[in-house]
Amino acid sequence: MLKVIAQDFIRLDAIETVLPLYRELVELTRLEPLNVSYELFVDQEDPGHFIFVEEWPDRAALDAHCATEHFTRLVPQIDAHQRAADTYIQMRRVFPA
Amino acid sequence: MLKVIAQDFIRLDAIETVLPLYRELVELTRLEPLNVSYELFVDQEDPGHFIFVEEWPDRAALDAHCATEHFTRLVPQIDAHQRAADTYIQMRRVFPA
Repeated sequence: MLKVIAQDFIRLDAIETVLPLYRELVELTRLEPLNVSYELFVDQEDPGHFIFVEEWPDRAALDAHCATEHFTRLVPQIDAHQRAADTYIQMRRVFPA
Repeated sequence: MLKVIAQDFIRLDAIETVLPLYRELVELTRLEPLNVSYELFVDQEDPGHFIFVEEWPDRAALDAHCATEHFTRLVPQIDAHQRAADTYIQMRRVFPA
């Protein structure tokens, strides 16, 4: 199990531009056979701070996601509106069930 | 719905000390009637970087959690071993189901 937190920092004047790109990215990623979960949140104190909370079976599944047509097409379009570099944390559960 | 990411940065020489405190905090928090989910992860690249991913029905439930006996007893014991200040993000879903 691989849990991921990916954080994007988008210019406030570009939020309406990125929202449909995020929607397509979320919808298509959830169709990937290896995706366990893929949720997008926004910081209550910063409407340009978007946070993905993702779960994948392993690193190979995450790598496959990053190579999909929808990822390689949509993520650069989103990143064009960044105000700061995105960040990623790859994590494992501390107390597995 | 309120989603929370809380990040702790623990001194590497204190990891074995904080793990049982985290375990008790996770177990008792999950027993809170208003808790939706409460999971603890660790950064694959930093064994002292612990990340809670939490879900609560609303801010009042989170406030009640922060006032519980287990939170007010255990969190200061954990924070005594911090190497940097903890951080919190309160979030909402971008595309609710």
